[in-house]
Amino acid sequence: MVPESVMKSLSVSTPSRIVLLVMDGLGDVRQKGKTPLEAARTPHLDLLAAEATLGLSDPISSGITPGSGPAHISLFGYDPIRYQIGRGVLEATGIDLKLKPDDVASRGNFAAMDDGGLITDRRAGRISTEENAKLVDLMGSAIREIQGIEVILRTVKEHRFVAVFRGPGLDDRVSETDPQVLGKKGLDPAPLAPEARKTASVVKEFIARADSVLRGRHPANTLLLRGFSAPPTVPQMQELFKLTPAAIATYPMYRGLARLVGMTILPTGETVEEEFDTLRKNWERFDFFFIHVKKTDSYGEDWNFPGKVKVIEEVDRCLPRILDLKPDVLAVTGDHSTPCCLSAHSWHPNPFLLRSPYVRADETAAFSEATCVRGGLGRFPAVEAMALMLANALKLEKFGA
Amino acid sequence: MVPESVMKSLSVSTPSRIVLLVMDGLGDVRQKGKTPLEAARTPHLDLLAAEATLGLSDPISSGITPGSGPAHISLFGYDPIRYQIGRGVLEATGIDLKLKPDDVASRGNFAAMDDGGLITDRRAGRISTEENAKLVDLMGSAIREIQGIEVILRTVKEHRFVAVFRGPGLDDRVSETDPQVLGKKGLDPAPLAPEARKTASVVKEFIARADSVLRGRHPANTLLLRGFSAPPTVPQMQELFKLTPAAIATYPMYRGLARLVGMTILPTGETVEEEFDTLRKNWERFDFFFIHVKKTDSYGEDWNFPGKVKVIEEVDRCLPRILDLKPDVLAVTGDHSTPCCLSAHSWHPNPFLLRSPYVRADETAAFSEATCVRGGLGRFPAVEAMALMLANALKLEKFGA
Repeated sequence: MVPESVMKSLSVSTPSRIVLLVMDGLGDVRQKGKTPLEAARTPHLDLLAAEATLGLSDPISSGITPGSGPAHISLFGYDPIRYQIGRGVLEATGIDLKLKPDDVASRGNFAAMDDGGLITDRRAGRISTEENAKLVDLMGSAIREIQGIEVILRTVKEHRFVAVFRGPGLDDRVSETDPQVLGKKGLDPAPLAPEARKTASVVKEFIARADSVLRGRHPANTLLLRGFSAPPTVPQMQELFKLTPAAIATYPMYRGLARLVGMTILPTGETVEEEFDTLRKNWERFDFFFIHVKKTDSYGEDWNFPGKVKVIEEVDRCLPRILDLKPDVLAVTGDHSTPCCLSAHSWHPNPFLLRSPYVRADETAAFSEATCVRGGLGRFPAVEAMALMLANALKLEKFGA
Repeated sequence: MVPESVMKSLSVSTPSRIVLLVMDGLGDVRQKGKTPLEAARTPHLDLLAAEATLGLSDPISSGITPGSGPAHISLFGYDPIRYQIGRGVLEATGIDLKLKPDDVASRGNFAAMDDGGLITDRRAGRISTEENAKLVDLMGSAIREIQGIEVILRTVKEHRFVAVFRGPGLDDRVSETDPQVLGKKGLDPAPLAPEARKTASVVKEFIARADSVLRGRHPANTLLLRGFSAPPTVPQMQELFKLTPAAIATYPMYRGLARLVGMTILPTGETVEEEFDTLRKNWERFDFFFIHVKKTDSYGEDWNFPGKVKVIEEVDRCLPRILDLKPDVLAVTGDHSTPCCLSAHSWHPNPFLLRSPYVRADETAAFSEATCVRGGLGRFPAVEAMALMLANALKLEKFGA
C-alpha cells in the first residue's frame, strides 16, 4: 500500500464507473467438499469469472479476524490499523445516529445494582427494547445538559443504548465504568490523559444523575458505559480518490461506515433486488457504488450453510441488473469470511473478483475460493483493492516519470 | 522487504555472478487469448522456465503504474517511495548528463511571450532540435555563472532542454515557473523552504538574463523551468549489496538510473545481440549485470502487438549467448507492464523468472503471464527481487543466530 499522500496525488476524476459488491462474510470453509460459494449455483458469477481476474484478499493481515468496522474501512482503501473506530462510535453508527467530529460516543448497558451499589447483573436481565426506550426517554428528559455539554441518548436493543456527549473541549480518553465482574461497584470514569479531565467529570456527573432517575427501577437501576470514542478523522473519498461515491446498504452500521468516508447514503429496500434497483436509479449521479449484501454473513453466523448458499444464489440471479449497466469496473468480494462451522467472523482471506476491460483474465470457469487461490491477483491486502479498482477504471495517473 | 541496514549487514562479496535481464514493459494483457509473451515463440525461455521458479512482481504496489524511474529503482532493490527521482534529474539522466550530488537540475521549455510578457505558447511552436541547440549555445556563452553558481545547459529535443545549477549552498525546493496556462506571465521561482532562497534568486536572475539573450527570437523568446531536483542520495550497490555492478543499456535514461545506484556503464551497440556481446566481453570484470532491452516497451506504447512479439523472439534467439556464460543466477523480467491495448505503462505485475541451482523449480514448460501466476514465487513486490537474486547467488548470510 502506498502512502495516502501518493494516492491523493495520483487519483483523478473521470466519467468511468466502479461497482464494489460486498457479500458480507462471503468466504467460508468446506463442508462435505464444498464451501457455500462452491456449492451455490452461480451461472452469472461464473461467466463473470471467465472475463475477470481473481484472488484472495486479507482484510487486515494473515490470521487476523476483523470486526465489520476494520473490514470495511480496509475495503474502502484506508489503513485499518491507523483508522480504528471505537465501540461507541460504531454503536452510534449502527443506529444511524450522525456524529459530529468532536462528539464522544459511548456504548451503554442498563444494569442492576444492590443497595450497597454492587453490580448484580451487567445486562439488567436483558430488559425489553420497549422498556429500554421508556428509560432512555426518562433519562433524556431529566438530563439534557451537563457542564455545558449536551447529552444525547438513544435506545439500541434490549439492555443496550448509546450515550453521546456533544460540546467543546471533550476528549475520548476516558476509562470504562463496567467492572466486568459481578459483586463490584461500577467504576468511576477516569481521565487517561490530562485533556480528558473535563470529559471524565461530565461522564461521572451523568452517571450520578442517571442513577437518581433510575432509582427503584430494578433490574435497570444503574448503567455502565464503555468504548468512549470520537469519530476518527478520515480523509474523505472525494478528496483522497477523487470519487463521487454512494452506498447502498440495508443495515445501519454499513451505512454509517460508508458515511464516515464520505459516501452518500442512498435509500433502498430490504431485498437484494431492491438494492440493485437502487443502483440503477442512481447510476448517472455517482462514479463509485458500494453495495452491501448482509445475509451471507447472518446465515454464516447462524451456522446455516443452505441459507448462505441461497443468498449467494439470489445475488447471482439478480446480477444481470448490475451487468446491464455496464460498469467499467466490477469487483465482487466479501468484507471478511464468516464460516458456518465457526458461526462467527474469521481470518480466512476473501474471494475477490475483478472485471474491467484491462484485466489479465484468468481463464477460469467459476468464482469460488478454489479458483481464487489460482487467480492472477494472488493474495493481497484488502486495503489495496481500492488502488486496483481505481487503476482498472483508469483513475490513477503514473507514479514518477 | 527488510530495512537497508539489515541487507547491508547480511550481504557478502562472492565470485558468483548475477544477470538481471529486463525487457522493458514486458507484461501485457491478452488479445485473442494471448499476451505477446504467450504469443511469441520462445524455445529458450521456455526451457529456462522448466529449470526456474516463476512469479509476478509488483513494481510499486497493487494498482500503481510506475514511471521508468521508480520501476527501475525498485528492481535495483531500493524503496521507490523513499528514493523518488525528480523530473529535472530524470531529464538530465535521459541525456547522459552526469550530475554531482549537490546539483539542482530542472527541465526547461523554450516558450513564446508577447510584448506584455504574457505566455502565448508554452512550447515555442515546438521549434526544431537544431534551433534549440543554437539557442542553448547562445545562452550558454552569455550565462556561464550566476552568483558564484555554474549554469550548465543542454539541448534535449524540440523545445525541451535541461538547466543544471552547480555550486555551494543550493537547495531544490524551488517552485516551478511554468504558469501551465496561456495568457499569464511566467511565474517567479519562489523558495519553498528558507534554505532554498539562494537557489530561487539564482534561478530568477538566470531567467532574466536568458530573456535578454532570447529577446526578439519569437517564438522562443523566453523559457519556463520545472521539476527542480537534486539527485537523490542513494546508497551505492557496492556498499549495500557488496556487488561490483555493471549496466548494459542502449537508452541514456536507463544508463543514468543505473549510474545513480553505482553501476559502471558499459558502452554497447544498438541491438540485443550487441548488448549480449557486451556482456560476454565484460564477464570477468563484474559480478552483477543489468541488461536493459528497450523495444518491448516502445512497441507496447505504439499499440504494436506483433512488433512486441518480434522483440521477445529476438531476445529469445540471442539468449544462448547469456546461457553459455553460465551465470549463477539469471533473472528475466520487466520493469513494468506496457500493455499494447493501453499503449502506456500500466499497473499489471511483471512476469518474473529466476534460475539458479538452488531454486525450487516449478515444473512448467513455458515463460508467460499465465505460468507466472502459478509460479512458486507467487506475487511479490519487485523491490524484493534483489534479495532473491543475492540469496540464490549465495551472497546473503543468515539473519540472526
